[in-house]
Amino acid sequence: MMLTTQTFVQVLDLGGTFVFAISGAVAAVNRRLDLFGILVLSFVAGNAGGITRDVLIGAVPPAALATGHYLLASVLAGLITFVFYAGVDRLRAPVLMFDAVGLAFFAVAGTEKALAFGLDPVMAALLGMVTGIGGGMMRDVLLTEIPQVLRSDLYAVAALACASIVVIGRVLGFGYAIPALAGGALCIGLRYMAIRHGWHLPIAHLSARGRAAPDAEKDKDRDI
Amino acid sequence: MMLTTQTFVQVLDLGGTFVFAISGAVAAVNRRLDLFGILVLSFVAGNAGGITRDVLIGAVPPAALATGHYLLASVLAGLITFVFYAGVDRLRAPVLMFDAVGLAFFAVAGTEKALAFGLDPVMAALLGMVTGIGGGMMRDVLLTEIPQVLRSDLYAVAALACASIVVIGRVLGFGYAIPALAGGALCIGLRYMAIRHGWHLPIAHLSARGRAAPDAEKDKDRDI
Amino acid sequence: MMLTTQTFVQVLDLGGTFVFAISGAVAAVNRRLDLFGILVLSFVAGNAGGITRDVLIGAVPPAALATGHYLLASVLAGLITFVFYAGVDRLRAPVLMFDAVGLAFFAVAGTEKALAFGLDPVMAALLGMVTGIGGGMMRDVLLTEIPQVLRSDLYAVAALACASIVVIGRVLGFGYAIPALAGGALCIGLRYMAIRHGWHLPIAHLSARGRAAPDAEKDKDRDI
Repeated sequence: MMLTTQTFVQVLDLGGTFVFAISGAVAAVNRRLDLFGILVLSFVAGNAGGITRDVLIGAVPPAALATGHYLLASVLAGLITFVFYAGVDRLRAPVLMFDAVGLAFFAVAGTEKALAFGLDPVMAALLGMVTGIGGGMMRDVLLTEIPQVLRSDLYAVAALACASIVVIGRVLGFGYAIPALAGGALCIGLRYMAIRHGWHLPIAHLSARGRAAPDAEKDKDRDI
Repeated sequence: MMLTTQTFVQVLDLGGTFVFAISGAVAAVNRRLDLFGILVLSFVAGNAGGITRDVLIGAVPPAALATGHYLLASVLAGLITFVFYAGVDRLRAPVLMFDAVGLAFFAVAGTEKALAFGLDPVMAALLGMVTGIGGGMMRDVLLTEIPQVLRSDLYAVAALACASIVVIGRVLGFGYAIPALAGGALCIGLRYMAIRHGWHLPIAHLSARGRAAPDAEKDKDRDI
Repeated sequence: MMLTTQTFVQVLDLGGTFVFAISGAVAAVNRRLDLFGILVLSFVAGNAGGITRDVLIGAVPPAALATGHYLLASVLAGLITFVFYAGVDRLRAPVLMFDAVGLAFFAVAGTEKALAFGLDPVMAALLGMVTGIGGGMMRDVLLTEIPQVLRSDLYAVAALACASIVVIGRVLGFGYAIPALAGGALCIGLRYMAIRHGWHLPIAHLSARGRAAPDAEKDKDRDI
């Protein structure tokens, strides 16, 4: 193995940014944004989680702005989506699974960085989750949709479970690699069960008046 | 009085977070978010104001992320709302008054912290207001609603009035306790007049075309 | 010329804040916010871009909160709009051109500040653009609209082109004034062509199903 951990991390990190950027670009195309809007959504979806984490822990300028790699990966994803939209849209199922990999890595990397900046374990796990879900949340807010991660599919829960494993592994002294792999596997597994078998969290029991039904109805036709 | 100011502040601070978190959880249940979405909205509504203030004054990591108390108060509020939704929803009127207390405290604490970080008095009052209203604004943005505090009920004005009293008291050398109590009383009093007697600010006079009427109509059925 | 660069910059900066604040106030009046909501939107539209830039580069507290000038300019713009709404609304065309001037200056100032804080040239240009478009984006998010700058009119592109000229001029050693003037002229020129002659960027080619059409339809009647 010539691959160092550092290289491995960077490759996965840029891969995660790339996949998340595609989700932003697809959403932007669906809302008929112009080319520039598509690139902005690509960058936001791919980097807002990491930027939020870095601002909160005081790591400014954020990594996504300190080098050009993340911008390049995001713009590339946006341009590919712009040119090959029909093709990208047909790849929905594989993209969802690749997205789960990106989520897992972001959760691991976010947690590690927060621990390195001295946050306590519980808060580090929380920031790992924010790193994973922040991009998708910002993407949805800019498109005036309720963030998809808030309503379904064990998405944020998968990120949090992964981050928690990383933190627990660290506290128990398991080093870096094993908790990262275990947490990542749990994240991907939970996403797989949510996508293939419809696993989901409960929603609150409402009274017979059914106050919220119209809202839920209105938003049910979201993508990705 | 065995109670020190420090303890008093912390109790009220966590109380404010708890009440605001309930408002976030109730809104999330009404929009049919799942359990996790409810907990996220609880945390956001209870802490986004303080986190925004801390990021703007350079106090990172923000207090809400530096200890687990705020997370605990938020999660507790979210779980209680999830389990006892019908009951919480019936408590609307008492919650509104308790919410006014939380608003008053957040405005006082936010102003004091901004002054301690060296901001000038006017800007410290502004940040005190942001501390009070930031959580509710972020809650509404995530649910794709125009922030309630922007349109009614002397809500932000009550927070700003409270923060201004605190700042004026400080500039005039009244120490800590008296301005805090006077500002808090003004905030709660303004909210009471808004809730019970419909006090509100003017809106701009529109031309006969009445351009904005449909939008206003669309948003009129909000809660809390 | 008794006017120093410093003074020139401050005058233009406050002018930009003032014009952007008017766009926020007009949008707030159109959505029937109360007086306070109008003032908040004024401040947000006039200052959110600069605040975002300052938080990202670690310049806290942000300039807009470190002195009262920006608050004063924003509140003044909001009050004028509130009182003279009908008149301000009729001035749409001149405001658009003045807005282009504000955009140009924000892009120049944002880029210069990011360079001064040590960001690399490409990222400095990106932050210059963020400075120019951030206020309008935040304004639209608070009003639950898809940010106008993401969908039309070479708006963000004009800001980015301006910022790029500034950065290229710096790298090539042209000093401060010439790149700023050239970039500003390009920004204003692009906006002029967009407003007068409908220049715009391409949007992605969708398949025959035309999935996004209803959304595009829903949002087409935006202002400013």
